[in-house]
Amino acid sequence: MKFMEQKDDRKLILVTNDDGYNAKGLRAAIEVARRFGRVVVVAPECMQSGMSQAITMFNPLYLRRVSHDDEVEVYAFSGTPVDCVKLAFDYLLKDQRVDLVISGVNHGSNSAVNVLYSGTMGVAIEGSFYGCPSVGLSLLDHSADADFEAAVVYGERVVRAVLEMPIDRPLCLNVNVPQGEPREIRGIRVCRQNRGFWREEFFRHEDPHGREYFWLSGAFINHEPDASDTDEWALAHGYVSVVPVQVDLTDYARMPLLRRALFTEPEH
Amino acid sequence: MKFMEQKDDRKLILVTNDDGYNAKGLRAAIEVARRFGRVVVVAPECMQSGMSQAITMFNPLYLRRVSHDDEVEVYAFSGTPVDCVKLAFDYLLKDQRVDLVISGVNHGSNSAVNVLYSGTMGVAIEGSFYGCPSVGLSLLDHSADADFEAAVVYGERVVRAVLEMPIDRPLCLNVNVPQGEPREIRGIRVCRQNRGFWREEFFRHEDPHGREYFWLSGAFINHEPDASDTDEWALAHGYVSVVPVQVDLTDYARMPLLRRALFTEPEH
Repeated sequence: MKFMEQKDDRKLILVTNDDGYNAKGLRAAIEVARRFGRVVVVAPECMQSGMSQAITMFNPLYLRRVSHDDEVEVYAFSGTPVDCVKLAFDYLLKDQRVDLVISGVNHGSNSAVNVLYSGTMGVAIEGSFYGCPSVGLSLLDHSADADFEAAVVYGERVVRAVLEMPIDRPLCLNVNVPQGEPREIRGIRVCRQNRGFWREEFFRHEDPHGREYFWLSGAFINHEPDASDTDEWALAHGYVSVVPVQVDLTDYARMPLLRRALFTEPEH
Repeated sequence: MKFMEQKDDRKLILVTNDDGYNAKGLRAAIEVARRFGRVVVVAPECMQSGMSQAITMFNPLYLRRVSHDDEVEVYAFSGTPVDCVKLAFDYLLKDQRVDLVISGVNHGSNSAVNVLYSGTMGVAIEGSFYGCPSVGLSLLDHSADADFEAAVVYGERVVRAVLEMPIDRPLCLNVNVPQGEPREIRGIRVCRQNRGFWREEFFRHEDPHGREYFWLSGAFINHEPDASDTDEWALAHGYVSVVPVQVDLTDYARMPLLRRALFTEPEH
């Protein structure tokens, strides 16, 4: 397999997603990306929603080039979304400078705690590990033929700002776009992640062989529906939400209590 | 299927993992848990390492009871590690008060950024969403027949402290135990998550059908090997590391710059 070689000074944008290389949302992300440079797409062969930051440790993975022209080269990879990003940075584009990662556009919201379950945000986070600004784009519409126009308009606006920002440390953005036409959207709000979680219902049925099976179906419990500085609030009120994401999960406020409870030395 | 009913005032401990219901490390976690009350285990049918916080959205899932006595009841579930926790809280134990979740003992480290990829920590985090203190236990030994004695000794010490602590909001601990006998371990350190990431190497080979495949194999890049307040440092120096974990990923320090870059209103 021969790979596209760097032959000009256009920016290089890596595009990926968790809905698979054939998803309509991926085409929207490519549309955003190609306005800023040439595009390499490495996306999963199949739909991988809810895959979080999962990686494939115990299986071989297959790569194929789906299409290519001077501006856009598309690969499908049999791994998880994060596997795709790792393959792109550590193999396919190893000797090239990637200027930006765009993940998405996801079919469905990744606001609030969804950032933890989301393959879309899993790859955006992974991209930022490689020192490359990353933007995860999601549209609040699960349907396969959703209208991505607003996501393209606002995605372009966010990406332009990111490429012009001074960036001194990893940058990762969780961008969610409400349903509707661009003119219906009230603007962009920079937000914090809403607190809440998913409570599940398990549907129980019998399969054709008489075995009982379960099927997950949840409802989001919002712990702070009135907090106007959160992404959930912004989306519910017609704004695009932008949450900057970092990956230090340390609960610093808990450390003194824990040190006392565990009888460790008071100071490290 | 009939489920164990609450019939006494012993504590109820949910045990799960990502290595599957048959892993040796799970038996070590059960050994810790049964010292504090009766135990319900819901663990994946198969090994699910690296599954992060993944959930199964588009497949039916199967549950079976593997074994049970008065003290320990074991279920195997065909989903991801997080699916197991959700099934436990939202179905199997729906009407019961769970006092603690123990996840592990994982075969291999979950320190530093591994917290993001780890199924073990994915379920510990999920457990804390249900308002229940959660402890993820990992041993720095990948082998199937690792010696879990130190993990049991220190796991018990941490769990005892957690059950006696005042808990006013979700508590989740990432506990890693170095290799070696208990007497070789120097104590416990409460740490912050080390900064670093995995750089991958992709092994390329041909399968028996002549198709090229890739296999992921990484090396951890430690961005701060000398920082003595991190989990990596503690483990490298013979201590058990305890990192309290929270799930607000918002990069608050980035918000003002982003607001300026995106021309949003200065204040929300």
